[in-house]
Amino acid sequence: MKIVSARDFNLQREVDYGTPEQNEAVHAIIRSVRQEGDAAVLRYTESFDGVSLTAEQLRVTEEELKAAYDKVEPSFLQAIREAADNIRAFHMKQKRNSWMDLQPDGSLLGQIIRPLKRVGVYVPGGKAAYPSSVLMNVIPAQVAGVPEIVMVTPPATGGKAGIDPYTLVAAAEAGVTEMYRVGGAQAIASLAYGTDSIEPVDKICGPGNIYVALAKREVYGAVDIDSIAGPSEIVVLADDTANASYVAADLLSQAEHDEMASAILVTPSQRLAEEVSAEVQRQLAELPRRDIAAASVDAYGAIIVVDTLHEGIQIVNKLAPEHLEIMTENPMEHVGLIENAGAIFLGAYSSEPVGDYFAGPNHIIPTNGTARFSSPVDIDDFIKKSSMIYYSKEALLRNGETIMQLARHEGLEGHARAIQVRLDNEKKAVDGDGE
Amino acid sequence: MKIVSARDFNLQREVDYGTPEQNEAVHAIIRSVRQEGDAAVLRYTESFDGVSLTAEQLRVTEEELKAAYDKVEPSFLQAIREAADNIRAFHMKQKRNSWMDLQPDGSLLGQIIRPLKRVGVYVPGGKAAYPSSVLMNVIPAQVAGVPEIVMVTPPATGGKAGIDPYTLVAAAEAGVTEMYRVGGAQAIASLAYGTDSIEPVDKICGPGNIYVALAKREVYGAVDIDSIAGPSEIVVLADDTANASYVAADLLSQAEHDEMASAILVTPSQRLAEEVSAEVQRQLAELPRRDIAAASVDAYGAIIVVDTLHEGIQIVNKLAPEHLEIMTENPMEHVGLIENAGAIFLGAYSSEPVGDYFAGPNHIIPTNGTARFSSPVDIDDFIKKSSMIYYSKEALLRNGETIMQLARHEGLEGHARAIQVRLDNEKKAVDGDGE
Repeated sequence: MKIVSARDFNLQREVDYGTPEQNEAVHAIIRSVRQEGDAAVLRYTESFDGVSLTAEQLRVTEEELKAAYDKVEPSFLQAIREAADNIRAFHMKQKRNSWMDLQPDGSLLGQIIRPLKRVGVYVPGGKAAYPSSVLMNVIPAQVAGVPEIVMVTPPATGGKAGIDPYTLVAAAEAGVTEMYRVGGAQAIASLAYGTDSIEPVDKICGPGNIYVALAKREVYGAVDIDSIAGPSEIVVLADDTANASYVAADLLSQAEHDEMASAILVTPSQRLAEEVSAEVQRQLAELPRRDIAAASVDAYGAIIVVDTLHEGIQIVNKLAPEHLEIMTENPMEHVGLIENAGAIFLGAYSSEPVGDYFAGPNHIIPTNGTARFSSPVDIDDFIKKSSMIYYSKEALLRNGETIMQLARHEGLEGHARAIQVRLDNEKKAVDGDGE
Repeated sequence: MKIVSARDFNLQREVDYGTPEQNEAVHAIIRSVRQEGDAAVLRYTESFDGVSLTAEQLRVTEEELKAAYDKVEPSFLQAIREAADNIRAFHMKQKRNSWMDLQPDGSLLGQIIRPLKRVGVYVPGGKAAYPSSVLMNVIPAQVAGVPEIVMVTPPATGGKAGIDPYTLVAAAEAGVTEMYRVGGAQAIASLAYGTDSIEPVDKICGPGNIYVALAKREVYGAVDIDSIAGPSEIVVLADDTANASYVAADLLSQAEHDEMASAILVTPSQRLAEEVSAEVQRQLAELPRRDIAAASVDAYGAIIVVDTLHEGIQIVNKLAPEHLEIMTENPMEHVGLIENAGAIFLGAYSSEPVGDYFAGPNHIIPTNGTARFSSPVDIDDFIKKSSMIYYSKEALLRNGETIMQLARHEGLEGHARAIQVRLDNEKKAVDGDGE
């Protein structure tokens, strides 16, 4: 792993907006599903997944779910349940109540906080189906109180039409209420616009290939979507007290995700820099996904040697990484100085995979420098707020003139008259009383 | 105003994504500003606004701001200050603290909540400069704690280069910290990528014409943007107790915004329906903006007569209006049944303009049916959250095997090894102690 001095380093990568052909293909699929509904969905499923289904077969049955539970090992089920409990407990802490502010003039102002009504979660098929990702997408919605959570995932190819039993079990444990075997852009179109078999949703979440990403972009507005994740990133900020083999292992745990993933060590310790560099080489040689990890390390990995931890923190804030590990003597003393990082792992035992799978905070975290302005998935992503205004007669009588003045300044006489008609009427009533 | 029975009614309109020529023009402007910085900004300002400036003149000076204060009437300043106080008080109630959950095994999990560092607010020029809109965009950012709030607004055309003094005063009162006389797509590009004169921001808010909207869309990702507002909407849900002249005035206050605005009454009262219809005609005839309001009423206005209030509520939930007024005998008893509405106004005195200008809740509210999944602007739009994970040694020793099992199930051996290296090391330490 190359050791470099502090320099202009940037995590931002170009976002993939697809080729014109891919965009056109996605556009055509969405149009067909909107026009033909299930018929189009079944046709695309046959052509892309090689599976011929009837509309009735789209929905996963209770029997299939039961069979899936029979297939997974009890230890896996136990592990998923423990992880789900932790994720649920952490997200429960984020819940907020609707609130009201009672004014002395009798007015009530407030915010009503409600869950979304129906959410769709896309789960990729085959090897890209990660049970942990199912938990992280579904549990926040469930904790937020979303009553209808729909999973869509492509059927196994080659006529089998099955779905990975681990995915089914994770989905059921997380709180999915309906499951459909449909994937790709046709799944996104079904969720956005509905078909005879699949009711439309209010928001679509979850990762997918470029066709899924483009379809989500296209249906945004008709429904909400989550953000589209870039390659994974880790920055480790460490001083001379850090264990080089821990640092190297954590860097590689991100590098193995993707050839475009980025793993960076920032340290004022030349000794640590050299030891981590050697450790990365050593551990890399034994890693099953060494080709991917090596490509990532070569292209997007770096060890940045800085003069001081303070300088290192400035680099971290500029990078705004998805994951930040702080392995220094007193990690807590640096947290307050971190302005931009999606998730912050403190100390020698807070290895990043702890957060990927188990601790409780969400592992869907802003990438590509967007931690400057966005946040990990949490229950705020599955609620909506309505303002509530109950204005008392006293309040309107007292403030009506001021409101009309502001409206008239903006040339909106109709706004002023909506107030005036009430003031006039009240004045008439008072005059009437006086007679 | 036409009276119709309950039927398929939809507030959703096509979003304007601009012509290919408009998109190409915006793309070229952004590219030039990225490449040439101030030079491009000054060139576009000369060509679009007819104003020749130097880079030093882009920023509004203290003297200009002082002159603006001298120009506005004391009563306007007083009104703006009262409104700002109310808006600030309401948004203060939304503030959340960073929090931690202390686990019995010594682990700490939490969310760090911080303001964005730098926010840009676009304010349209000329007649479209609404001081109320400046307050509503800026105050939530200021209350959230954003230290740098930058306003950009086009200079007056024809070589004057001035900015509406009411806009300057509203901006200063709301908490803007820097002001620049630059508009259009060149302003958005400057905020997103920075020039010598204007530092880049983390998020861009505020309304603008089609060029501004397209530019915001294009820079999204490099920075965050707010959502792009559609035409204004109001639905009034009223029973036989409602005052027809109030209802009509409130419907017209939205209709006067825009020919594409939508104003709808939903009522089980045939009498009210007829009276409101007549009142709308009567009030419309006297309205300065009657041409706009009449076009809106004709194209997108309706009085929907329903059998019961309950049926009316179902229609409201389907429409998911930006503004909902409930003028019934006991409005509070219906609030709990409203699933989708951006802002809810209760009772005879809570006329919608009360919320536009003065009461405190934000007037930037989801339109186009998106209240199903989005919310009025509030301080959540100007904060970012970081997850915090301090995992104790005890926690890792106890849960390490489970975490590795989940990682290995997903084929991510590198993730498992980041845990394994720690468990091995601890075991060695314990074995060492035992010798």
